[in-house]
Amino acid sequence: MNKIITIGREFGSGGRELGKRLSDHLGIAYYDKEIIDEIAKRTKLAEGYVRGIVEQQSGVFFPITVGRTFHSTGSDYILKQYTSVYAEQANVLREMAEKSDCIIVGRCGDYILKDHNPIRLFVYADMDAKFKRCREKADEHEHLSDSELIKMIRKVDKNRAKYYRYYTGQEWGDRANYDMCINTSTVPVKELAEALAHLFG
Amino acid sequence: MNKIITIGREFGSGGRELGKRLSDHLGIAYYDKEIIDEIAKRTKLAEGYVRGIVEQQSGVFFPITVGRTFHSTGSDYILKQYTSVYAEQANVLREMAEKSDCIIVGRCGDYILKDHNPIRLFVYADMDAKFKRCREKADEHEHLSDSELIKMIRKVDKNRAKYYRYYTGQEWGDRANYDMCINTSTVPVKELAEALAHLFG
Repeated sequence: MNKIITIGREFGSGGRELGKRLSDHLGIAYYDKEIIDEIAKRTKLAEGYVRGIVEQQSGVFFPITVGRTFHSTGSDYILKQYTSVYAEQANVLREMAEKSDCIIVGRCGDYILKDHNPIRLFVYADMDAKFKRCREKADEHEHLSDSELIKMIRKVDKNRAKYYRYYTGQEWGDRANYDMCINTSTVPVKELAEALAHLFG
Repeated sequence: MNKIITIGREFGSGGRELGKRLSDHLGIAYYDKEIIDEIAKRTKLAEGYVRGIVEQQSGVFFPITVGRTFHSTGSDYILKQYTSVYAEQANVLREMAEKSDCIIVGRCGDYILKDHNPIRLFVYADMDAKFKRCREKADEHEHLSDSELIKMIRKVDKNRAKYYRYYTGQEWGDRANYDMCINTSTVPVKELAEALAHLFG
């Protein structure tokens, strides 16, 4: 069975950086944008729209947050799109996991790939650290005021938790669902990746 | 400031073994039985009784679990003993933290020593793994049936959670209170200790 590492992560906690660094250390595949591209291709939906659904970052919010107005706004169609995106996401992840050792960030990977016995990491951080990390990516968030940025971080995580709970029936970030939960406020991601590569290599 | 590592742990999860191994790797002090001895000396209470209070393992249960009958059974005196044990525990831990680098297992160390910026670990495991680990220590638990042992593991953890909540106002095992939460069901403690020594050494 291939070695699969899944990384759940709070927004701005450095989960993606950890995934990339681990992938470099271990010399195994890292899937991120490729997943979105592949789902978009299969569902024939626009890449940006798929990203909005899967990453819960854009203006496209998960249907259960607008559930009450669902049946009066033609939203059956939207629900079908969400379901279809989730189904294709599951297919894509399983195919990737069968192809080779790999690291998968987000996307309910720990749950979808449970038959592959993945190493399940969850990365989180204090708000101060997440805020700082987001500010450092100036190009993405520079139009937001400090309070808007904090609000966005909270909202993205809230939506990720909802999305995860809806599709897995589990609590996002609950330690019982992971092999290791790591607070990057205090542990530098670079050194963390080295230590984890040592442990899981 | 000295390097302090605190380890909160579910019963049977291997927190003590991790502490000892980390202490060997890092060449720093490991405090366990010494804490009990010192508290017993200072409070003039029997060592076994102090251990019962601090470790929540014996027949001595934390007072809030019997709170309703407290004032009718001369239990003001017992409450004073608990409070005195906690106060001495805090003193002992602070003195140890000031003396040298060290590792402290349990005893609300993460909270009591927060001014020392400890590296705060929490170690947990699935019930199957905890059960197996407890069974391997045959001498301690061989008189218990399987179901009694499972019941005991649940009870000890429940009491540890109550004790921690009472003295810290925080949730025991909540990832927000730790730098790393580690599931030893899937990660061998020996290898884990090596990787953590690499990271925190």
